[in-house]
Amino acid sequence: MKLLNTIHSPADLRKLKKSELPELAQEVRAFIIDIVSAKEGHLGASLGVVELTIALHYIFDTPTDKLIWDVGHQAYGHKILTGRKEKFDTNRQLGGISGFPKRNESTYDDFGTGHSSTSISAILGMAIASKLKGALQKQHIAVIGDASIASGMAFEGLNHLGVTHTNVLIILNDNTIGIDPSVGALKKYLTNVKKGIAKDENIFECLNLTYSGPVDGHNIDILIAELERLKSVPGPKLLHVITTKGKGLQKAEENQVAYHAPGKFDKNTGELIHKATLQKEPPKYQDVFGHTLVELAKKNQKIIGITPAMPTGSSLKYMMEEIPDRAFDVGIAEQHAVTMAAGMVAEGLVPFCTVYSTFLQRAYDQVIHDVALQGLPVIFCLDRAGLVGQDGATHHGVFDIAFLRCIPNLIVFCPLNESELRNIMYTAQLGLKNPIAIRYPRGRGVTLDWRTNFEKINIGTAKEIKKGTKIAILSVGHIGNRISEIIEQAAFTKEIGHYDMRFVKPLDTDMLNTVFKKYESIITVEDGCKKGGFGTAVLEYASEMNFKNTIKILGIDDTFVEHGTVEELYKIVGLDDESIKKQIENLLKQ
Amino acid sequence: MKLLNTIHSPADLRKLKKSELPELAQEVRAFIIDIVSAKEGHLGASLGVVELTIALHYIFDTPTDKLIWDVGHQAYGHKILTGRKEKFDTNRQLGGISGFPKRNESTYDDFGTGHSSTSISAILGMAIASKLKGALQKQHIAVIGDASIASGMAFEGLNHLGVTHTNVLIILNDNTIGIDPSVGALKKYLTNVKKGIAKDENIFECLNLTYSGPVDGHNIDILIAELERLKSVPGPKLLHVITTKGKGLQKAEENQVAYHAPGKFDKNTGELIHKATLQKEPPKYQDVFGHTLVELAKKNQKIIGITPAMPTGSSLKYMMEEIPDRAFDVGIAEQHAVTMAAGMVAEGLVPFCTVYSTFLQRAYDQVIHDVALQGLPVIFCLDRAGLVGQDGATHHGVFDIAFLRCIPNLIVFCPLNESELRNIMYTAQLGLKNPIAIRYPRGRGVTLDWRTNFEKINIGTAKEIKKGTKIAILSVGHIGNRISEIIEQAAFTKEIGHYDMRFVKPLDTDMLNTVFKKYESIITVEDGCKKGGFGTAVLEYASEMNFKNTIKILGIDDTFVEHGTVEELYKIVGLDDESIKKQIENLLKQ
Repeated sequence: MKLLNTIHSPADLRKLKKSELPELAQEVRAFIIDIVSAKEGHLGASLGVVELTIALHYIFDTPTDKLIWDVGHQAYGHKILTGRKEKFDTNRQLGGISGFPKRNESTYDDFGTGHSSTSISAILGMAIASKLKGALQKQHIAVIGDASIASGMAFEGLNHLGVTHTNVLIILNDNTIGIDPSVGALKKYLTNVKKGIAKDENIFECLNLTYSGPVDGHNIDILIAELERLKSVPGPKLLHVITTKGKGLQKAEENQVAYHAPGKFDKNTGELIHKATLQKEPPKYQDVFGHTLVELAKKNQKIIGITPAMPTGSSLKYMMEEIPDRAFDVGIAEQHAVTMAAGMVAEGLVPFCTVYSTFLQRAYDQVIHDVALQGLPVIFCLDRAGLVGQDGATHHGVFDIAFLRCIPNLIVFCPLNESELRNIMYTAQLGLKNPIAIRYPRGRGVTLDWRTNFEKINIGTAKEIKKGTKIAILSVGHIGNRISEIIEQAAFTKEIGHYDMRFVKPLDTDMLNTVFKKYESIITVEDGCKKGGFGTAVLEYASEMNFKNTIKILGIDDTFVEHGTVEELYKIVGLDDESIKKQIENLLKQ
Repeated sequence: MKLLNTIHSPADLRKLKKSELPELAQEVRAFIIDIVSAKEGHLGASLGVVELTIALHYIFDTPTDKLIWDVGHQAYGHKILTGRKEKFDTNRQLGGISGFPKRNESTYDDFGTGHSSTSISAILGMAIASKLKGALQKQHIAVIGDASIASGMAFEGLNHLGVTHTNVLIILNDNTIGIDPSVGALKKYLTNVKKGIAKDENIFECLNLTYSGPVDGHNIDILIAELERLKSVPGPKLLHVITTKGKGLQKAEENQVAYHAPGKFDKNTGELIHKATLQKEPPKYQDVFGHTLVELAKKNQKIIGITPAMPTGSSLKYMMEEIPDRAFDVGIAEQHAVTMAAGMVAEGLVPFCTVYSTFLQRAYDQVIHDVALQGLPVIFCLDRAGLVGQDGATHHGVFDIAFLRCIPNLIVFCPLNESELRNIMYTAQLGLKNPIAIRYPRGRGVTLDWRTNFEKINIGTAKEIKKGTKIAILSVGHIGNRISEIIEQAAFTKEIGHYDMRFVKPLDTDMLNTVFKKYESIITVEDGCKKGGFGTAVLEYASEMNFKNTIKILGIDDTFVEHGTVEELYKIVGLDDESIKKQIENLLKQ
């Protein structure tokens, strides 16, 4: 690390000779592999842009010039070169640096990212600011991948950018893959461009951008020459750069999906290090979804699977492999995914649209306007609901209950465990009158033998898990399993009743009536935001019916939660076992 | 109306000779002008597609073939030709037909629209369904304008469409205008195509669609020949049709913005009929926003105005006229608008981003992820909040309080009147630490002399309007003016206190503490959905503080509200004066 050790900021980098940069690239790459192999994190994307990262900071005057990394999981090299080398081994850990660019972490992180396709809009806003301030020489660069630029939001940014006279350079980092391989007509087009079989057409020139490329993104000399040249080209422009995701680690190049975020691996061979599991583990919820969908789809020909760019993460890949004509990866296009599903329902199909909770925020209007308003029973399977851990504030799925609960006609269900997830999926495909959102967390369930027979669930019915005398705990979702354990292990077993409410909407009002009459106090528990969430739904019902019981809402306070392990974060938000136990004890004392 | 009178469904239309169709077009046009001149509604868009509408229903086998009208305000001809001619004079009226296509209104309305850019996704979903069912001859058509196709969601649909083998025909209805003139690079490109000065490039062919056109959209013979030909062209295709918005009514062609929805007019001359106003009226809220922004922007050079395609509707046009370099219409691109604003704040500007409440749903993730999470104080001015009247279910802005209230860091403010709107705008541009959403309704305020001096508002402070003894009414927003009137006119004046809470977030907890201690019961009033809204915020606070007062929430029940006048709709949802009065009386009796 001879060269890298001398670099504490891009100013140091700019002191190197051009001829030293390829060596630096190898050092940065080795540094990333070294840390990520031991500490985990996103690997392939950052390996792919090492040369580009060096070239950008070498040519441009960061942080005066503005640089935004779209999505941001490719920004490890950027972090290492901008003063965070020493802290890099704290990446994604509680109190450590974020896995994504973050404004309050560094002056070199000009705009926080995490969700895709925001960079063009943000950099254009900055470039317009520079222009108004008369800072005409200032450069503004956004690096965006070919999967991200195909998302609608990016197109909106390009469409505006093309009619401005701003110093904006879009770097299209074309590696033909996002987390999973890129899809769609634009990807096909870009492939033709690279093969030289596209016609004279250039889609970016159609949008009034000065296009250059494609160039080899692993050749620093070419990159530097081209970036230097583009500096003095006026107006908005796009440089098409070809890179290989995982570059420099053979296994990561060969298996780009697995090495997107591979967990621990051998830094020399690249071999993945699988955790030794002494005992069988319960399945991941995503796999319960994925396998159950295949099971149902084999019997019900109307079932369709749709994912916006998360076949692996959502486990829709199983259906894509087994029933490819009825399973669709539409790319990073949540809006399209939702409305296409609505169109399918209108023609009699039964689409399961699986979206991460946090990404459904991208299709909120479509859920309201195209699905719920028309009463079209799309089945939403919302993965990664609740706290997701190391991806942090941009990725926690904690707002969904609140933002879905206000939508008329929509059913909202939180399965307690694998069997409830399977049964609600079974129930939904039998035919519902209303759309339904089924939300479940990242991570594993609780049941080893989870392939249970299907049972129909009556919409709007809760389950009494345990009778009590004084306090009723009403929970929704997976967190209810911990409530059961807490009650079992505590001294106050008798006094506490526990109810798996499972439907946030419609609420089981019969059950609530019983509970309000029988118990003095109620505690609600959910792994979502308190404001407007499930607990609030219970409050609203109590107020409407004039029940005066004390109601204590446990959930996530009105603040963004940072990154860390799920366990650490639950402790911070006060939803760990100990905190919940204390809340119960306090209420018992009253 | 010789020909039109014979047409009760497209089957009748198809019995006409091709040579009779131009005459039919004149009759349809006259029919639309006749009704809309007297009954009001959207005019220009439907006049522009009369020939296209006839040609589509003549050539395609609707409703077996599927036909979606993007946005849908251009679908009057479609409604008239598909069995709704007799009912057409009930357009947009309570209990009458909707101003937009609506699935439960007609089997010919294959997909409900209202918000733009949904048609490509929906028609693709239907086409995939047909393919899976083996209905290989079935045709699927979406008609979308050049303003709508430039929105991100449409691009997502095209990107997927291009790699499918479906019978989808996109008709690009290019009239260079949405409600206001189209903007952006795509518009510029399409203009070049029409002028013949685009290179060999074709952006739609880049996206793997079979492109044809441009053709004259007012020449029925050409349209019919081309549609007939395209029927047998396999795979997804796009026909570029050039039309004139307002076609056939000279004034509407000349002033396309004013005649988008002109109100009443003389059907012969086109002359607008201005309502006789015996007395001066208070201003529209949008104009208070528009003029106040100019006033502030003249003094504060950092102020920027941004609208996604609503310069006229939001009155940002005043700033666009007076300070054009700092006021931006970005087209139908809410996502881009919001994140660009965030980028501007990051570079020290003070953007006012004005969006209709219902359209902010399109940028929900951007508000969370790019604005609130980063604590960037973008100033959102949300017009058309609450019930909007005749535009109906797709356009009511009733969910905003609920979906914004769960977002950390965000301030939510509802001005009671013109002065509160002006003062909060003044306050916001002085410098806030947090982003703010200011929501106000469609229609007029209450103050004739509204250009009052600016006063700073302390964030999170409510106002006591009137002291009482027994019941406190807590209102947010314009509806508070009616509460004041109701209290004044009623017999129960003394018992009722009234508080203009104005901040939904942060709540004025000092004021709430006082109110909860002083009054037995509380009534909350808002022009938004009850689930998760302002009343719920009060409930949450009461629960947290263990106040046991009875709290009655007045707002909009958990159902979609249809079209009608605002007055009629308020009555239906129980927020008219009489209903509110009854609620107060009932609570007084308890």
